[in-house]
Amino acid sequence: MPKTNDPSLKSWVPVPADSDFPIQNLPFGIFKSNSGNPRLGVAIGEYILDLSALAKEGMFDQIPFDKNVFSLSTLNSFIALGKHTTNAVRERISELLNINNQEVQGNESLKSKALVKQSDAQMLMPVSVPNYTDFYSSREHATNVGMMFRDPANALLPNWLHLPVGYHGRASSIVVSGTPIHRPKGQTKTDAEAMPSFGPSKSLDFELELAFITGRATALGESITTAQAEDYIFGLVLFNDWSARDLQRWEYVPLGPFLAKNFGSSISPWVVTLEALEPFRAEGPVQEPEVLPYLKYSGKKNYEINLEVAIQTPNGVSKTVSHSNFKYMYWNMCQQLAHHTVNGCNISVGDMYASGTISGPTSDSYGSMLEITWGGKDPVQMPDGTERKFINDNDTVVMKGYAERDGVRVGFGECVGKILPSK
Amino acid sequence: MPKTNDPSLKSWVPVPADSDFPIQNLPFGIFKSNSGNPRLGVAIGEYILDLSALAKEGMFDQIPFDKNVFSLSTLNSFIALGKHTTNAVRERISELLNINNQEVQGNESLKSKALVKQSDAQMLMPVSVPNYTDFYSSREHATNVGMMFRDPANALLPNWLHLPVGYHGRASSIVVSGTPIHRPKGQTKTDAEAMPSFGPSKSLDFELELAFITGRATALGESITTAQAEDYIFGLVLFNDWSARDLQRWEYVPLGPFLAKNFGSSISPWVVTLEALEPFRAEGPVQEPEVLPYLKYSGKKNYEINLEVAIQTPNGVSKTVSHSNFKYMYWNMCQQLAHHTVNGCNISVGDMYASGTISGPTSDSYGSMLEITWGGKDPVQMPDGTERKFINDNDTVVMKGYAERDGVRVGFGECVGKILPSK
Repeated sequence: MPKTNDPSLKSWVPVPADSDFPIQNLPFGIFKSNSGNPRLGVAIGEYILDLSALAKEGMFDQIPFDKNVFSLSTLNSFIALGKHTTNAVRERISELLNINNQEVQGNESLKSKALVKQSDAQMLMPVSVPNYTDFYSSREHATNVGMMFRDPANALLPNWLHLPVGYHGRASSIVVSGTPIHRPKGQTKTDAEAMPSFGPSKSLDFELELAFITGRATALGESITTAQAEDYIFGLVLFNDWSARDLQRWEYVPLGPFLAKNFGSSISPWVVTLEALEPFRAEGPVQEPEVLPYLKYSGKKNYEINLEVAIQTPNGVSKTVSHSNFKYMYWNMCQQLAHHTVNGCNISVGDMYASGTISGPTSDSYGSMLEITWGGKDPVQMPDGTERKFINDNDTVVMKGYAERDGVRVGFGECVGKILPSK
Repeated sequence: MPKTNDPSLKSWVPVPADSDFPIQNLPFGIFKSNSGNPRLGVAIGEYILDLSALAKEGMFDQIPFDKNVFSLSTLNSFIALGKHTTNAVRERISELLNINNQEVQGNESLKSKALVKQSDAQMLMPVSVPNYTDFYSSREHATNVGMMFRDPANALLPNWLHLPVGYHGRASSIVVSGTPIHRPKGQTKTDAEAMPSFGPSKSLDFELELAFITGRATALGESITTAQAEDYIFGLVLFNDWSARDLQRWEYVPLGPFLAKNFGSSISPWVVTLEALEPFRAEGPVQEPEVLPYLKYSGKKNYEINLEVAIQTPNGVSKTVSHSNFKYMYWNMCQQLAHHTVNGCNISVGDMYASGTISGPTSDSYGSMLEITWGGKDPVQMPDGTERKFINDNDTVVMKGYAERDGVRVGFGECVGKILPSK
């Protein structure tokens, strides 16, 4: 295990017991405080460590790279340096934050410049996203949707167990946690209606997902094997793939979801590195029938990450409507990336690859309202006496995710999105 | 009609009778010659007019904008200036190239710097593409594919006549004309086979399309009406949406095409402006049933543009396999953009929106081999005695497009792609 994951590590920065950001995590993000331009930071407890401020004082001089990458408004140039460098930076940060290290801890002037309270900062989109792909890799989710949208007797389509089904989504409308989203308008038609009608979506849903971000590019024609894939994955974020079910049902044949999804997707601002998740590796499900050779893999490629979704009503009451786990995924990230590139499709630094809705085996672990309420048939009872079939105007959806082992909690923070009425 | 379209205009640069690039066209592109970095040029006859060289001599001083945009490696910053500026630049170029104007014509030193033979230059990707959408807007194509892939009796799916069906494609793998593409490998399974197999695609196809490029961005939540749409469209290129039919047939349910398309798309290098196409407007087809209000439009929104596709065999013989026309499109670009944004999806400068395969009513006007050979049942006989069901290794596909009226031919040049064997 890398030394940065050692459960015994402690930081001189106070880290509350329930914090997602102990010294074992060190996720990267882009922040903006009252003073200064957007720049790179690392979350520690309730603070942000300002990497540009540390670099100006020579704290990364032993690692050879252009320190200006810390003063940019996206992580792309930093993560493009490659894991050799980004891991060295993360190890150096771990060293600087260690309770036994005095380089920053003992330098009051630097400490005051380099530590920014998260409550005093605004988090921005961590990466510029050149391409966004959404997979569909939870067997439970695909089965549930297939039962409701298509044929209950043949819910899982014939290809599903042979390849990680995916499609291209809209990169432009991925926004950072906290950005409100207007309820989309669009065409809908039920089987009972003769003609489609137009108006605000009546069944606006979330989808609980995680997304990985690639830190390394390939040229057109190149492929990545399952064994190579982890070297291309920089880290992960929470991903809310907002979905307008009524639009989707009408528009999606034969070429897939379009306006039902591209009005907005929300992500958490901190990119948790694959290295920070190392202690939480888990066995994936047995894949039967056997997959084709290019999809075979060895080792533990799933991750045990607790996930939850809460709905906050406009009057401020909140209810957690799902507890799921990333370990449920049928297809893992290495298989997804190997499949995506097996035809020579080139990938870029900053590309985002969402998992698809992460549903578990029971209804309290389903990752969308479509599944939780079974298409609206079984509404969620809210503590204020209202009920939800889908998401109402002025509701806020809050997703959280964290892994926990040996007393160490490595988390993603929150992915928050409020639905505003249609424009 | 804008003065730049006047059929009586002549340039002092010689323009061969069959050239796509008379003074009435003036398409923009990015080129690189032996000397110098990538930069902006305009095609005129067999030459490229180097806009950065002209700007350095003050030829655009009367138009206020940062002339450094002419020295960049994409058109994005230039087209982001807006139509007010880009049209003024195009009008100024028309003036400078006019046979009665001496500013460049009479300045031997500037002329030698500003005119580069196309045969001495390399054309590069004209734009950086933040997002790519592919529509499916030819009724003939959708009907033909529906008959072959699904149900001949209900070839057109229920939504097709009510909205311009589209999906998101892969931006990273769009390449400029001349870039070879390796035959993709992937999973396929026919109904007769019990299990999928893996290997090079056996039915690699082209799709004859045109794509428009947006020159103006919107914010998330904003919509563009059909009446506003033309102000957002900078221009068009030829687009070859390479498709691996055997991969597509197996993978595409339920979320649409993925690996069957994202191994590469080819575009022509010159962006023909909407203004240059003004004289070639045409009535669109009657849309019945009546479309919803947000898809209604007034005026002529189709364009009469002749399109053709030729296959060149490895031994150098060529056969034109399709003659189609952009006027056949059922859904026009204004409707596509209005639909795309009606839910608030934000668009970016440089986004590309392909039409979908442009098939006409007869088999010699079909825009893909799938349709031309009716799924391989009726192969194309090549002049060298070979036949083609789909595209062979080392075949080259050449697409051309031009509009013609009053003795003026406004064309796109060529979109060329050679298929190399699988890696």
